[in-house]
Amino acid sequence: MGFEAAGITAGLKASGKPDLSLLLAPEGAVCAGSFTTNRVRAACVDLCAERLAEGAGCARAVLTNSGQANACTGERGLIDSLRATAAVAAKLNVKPEQVLICSTGVIGVPIPIDTLLAGLDPLVAALGPAGGAAAASAILTTDLALKQIALEADLGGQRVRIGGMAKGSGMIHPDMATLLAYASCDAGVPAAIWQAMVGRAVARSFNAITVDGDTSTNDCYLAFAAGPPLNPELYPALEAGLTAVSQHLARAVARDGEGATCLIEVQVEGASSDADARAIARTVCGSSLVKTAVHGRDPNWGRIVAAAGRAGVAFQADAVALWLGEHQLMAAGSPLAFDRPAASTYLKERAAGAYLNADPRNGDTVTIRLAVGAGPGQGLAWGCDLSDQYVRINADYTT
Amino acid sequence: MGFEAAGITAGLKASGKPDLSLLLAPEGAVCAGSFTTNRVRAACVDLCAERLAEGAGCARAVLTNSGQANACTGERGLIDSLRATAAVAAKLNVKPEQVLICSTGVIGVPIPIDTLLAGLDPLVAALGPAGGAAAASAILTTDLALKQIALEADLGGQRVRIGGMAKGSGMIHPDMATLLAYASCDAGVPAAIWQAMVGRAVARSFNAITVDGDTSTNDCYLAFAAGPPLNPELYPALEAGLTAVSQHLARAVARDGEGATCLIEVQVEGASSDADARAIARTVCGSSLVKTAVHGRDPNWGRIVAAAGRAGVAFQADAVALWLGEHQLMAAGSPLAFDRPAASTYLKERAAGAYLNADPRNGDTVTIRLAVGAGPGQGLAWGCDLSDQYVRINADYTT
Repeated sequence: MGFEAAGITAGLKASGKPDLSLLLAPEGAVCAGSFTTNRVRAACVDLCAERLAEGAGCARAVLTNSGQANACTGERGLIDSLRATAAVAAKLNVKPEQVLICSTGVIGVPIPIDTLLAGLDPLVAALGPAGGAAAASAILTTDLALKQIALEADLGGQRVRIGGMAKGSGMIHPDMATLLAYASCDAGVPAAIWQAMVGRAVARSFNAITVDGDTSTNDCYLAFAAGPPLNPELYPALEAGLTAVSQHLARAVARDGEGATCLIEVQVEGASSDADARAIARTVCGSSLVKTAVHGRDPNWGRIVAAAGRAGVAFQADAVALWLGEHQLMAAGSPLAFDRPAASTYLKERAAGAYLNADPRNGDTVTIRLAVGAGPGQGLAWGCDLSDQYVRINADYTT
Repeated sequence: MGFEAAGITAGLKASGKPDLSLLLAPEGAVCAGSFTTNRVRAACVDLCAERLAEGAGCARAVLTNSGQANACTGERGLIDSLRATAAVAAKLNVKPEQVLICSTGVIGVPIPIDTLLAGLDPLVAALGPAGGAAAASAILTTDLALKQIALEADLGGQRVRIGGMAKGSGMIHPDMATLLAYASCDAGVPAAIWQAMVGRAVARSFNAITVDGDTSTNDCYLAFAAGPPLNPELYPALEAGLTAVSQHLARAVARDGEGATCLIEVQVEGASSDADARAIARTVCGSSLVKTAVHGRDPNWGRIVAAAGRAGVAFQADAVALWLGEHQLMAAGSPLAFDRPAASTYLKERAAGAYLNADPRNGDTVTIRLAVGAGPGQGLAWGCDLSDQYVRINADYTT
């Protein structure tokens, strides 16, 4: 038995769009979780973290309701999460402690629990190996695009599949401040090793994106692994695959940032460590001045280097070199004479690239490369441009 | 002899607006500086920091050119700063090491040094006790409003005056990423004590504002003190006055944020320490989601509490209480039923308040109060709303 999934419309969203999904992992599956660091955390996040800790990294299923975040809902939030997972466990004939729950939607609004419970029979009936797309659709809120990927590799003669799905447009959606992502892998890996792999993959993917700097009360990445044990020599290869899946989903979230017209990828090299390089890359990605300059198709190198300077990381300002696409704008910390119209055209062409759901790296990616010294540290981060559309969407929205 | 100031048009700005200013402190003045923490720092900032350190916190004058930031200008940047301060020193008959220089304007563009040097004779000739307003005008770049304050107090029978001026709209101006502020005090205080006072005042004023999170290459606050020695018992009273002057200037900068329609003041209480409270307040002030909600006149408490949760500071989420003006929106970590139209009207009225140059706290201040526990820590921060006008100004600008 492999992984199964389902997604249905239970009536939790006023829009009538799919809003309830279930992922079922094979018996013996290990599950690694990565959760929001926000001090204000939804009840469902607390429950997931607690169950994974007490269950030594094992879990069988995750239920997701979209429409209500179930954050800031007090005692009732926890009770609803317990009721929902207990009902799922009974229908799947597994232990309640092995069922996880994620919620996404409006903060402060409880789940219409009777509506959710009434949806569980049709949800379980819909479970199947081909249910991934329906599940990926049912976890969305205000996303414009479905975010899914499947990757297959031959690892030492063992065919290994890693699948993933995500929702979210960063934290930019009004009261929908949630990023959820799930991954499945059909190779067997001990729980502790899998958790460590997921932690490193998250650092290079979801923790390397930013849309507007606002972290969520509900952020959650759950990755399951179940299948024939993989030869430990192949763990690095598996981790590379897991990282690729995670990065694809993270880029898709950044590209779907509200009002965005392009994906921004910042590549930093020559830092003291990879962590330093990622910190610089993410700070540049998060700068409102850089984001508006890209939106205005302005090769404004001063804003990029000023943002790098406030990343909280030491580097030699007089060693900085900077490229926008193929255009070098700075060397040794000083501006170069560069072909400004050509650099601006590069930005215009990137924005004109169609937003292809299948692969967010197509055509509409603006690449900023920054060398900050001679150190070994490298890092990537992803974000999107900041448009007046972003402000209008978030200001016009009324709770 | 007291403090003197001057501001003239030397021809550094294409607009023909005033662009060169000079502040002259009495002999024996101490000067405390607070500088940008950005790793990419203009030559003039390096020079100021070095001269104050080597001169044991003493200085006589500060020259400010506006139009060119003199950042990322390599060797030439330092040479120009040295030439300008040497010329000022000769004309004032003081040591070059006692003259400071601040620059504000476009990053990467050198100062037209001959134009600046030619302006020094008329500048020195214009020096006088009433030159403050002219100087405050000549340090502006794209600011909409003059930022000045004078405060007078009777401290133990000694009449003490503290004056201050600032420029900047946070870091939101295209390539004009500079905040400059100056203060003068006509009481005598030892340099080390004055520097400590200024450090604490900056933590509660300029370091408590944010417009868009982008720190600058040129940020600089210089505060002079010269006059009859003040009774040390009255230092706390003097510090209160210095803090009030600094907070007035900082609020004026936040209120003048590009595209802003109101000032936002966040008050945090019940934190473990004042520093924790300020961190929470500043994070809420800097949240794009909070800023767009205020712009849309939406009492969106979920965004406020989610922003507080990511401040990197520990607090009990289930102890949070929240007020918007007089309207209480949360208690014990959960939302309250509140008069939504009235809360929205509060926000609308705040935005309708005229932007009064004299005091940015008039009418157009939105107050957010957050209690996060029973600790002794309190803190304030200031910011402004985020409008589509902000994005248009920064995206339409072309270097």
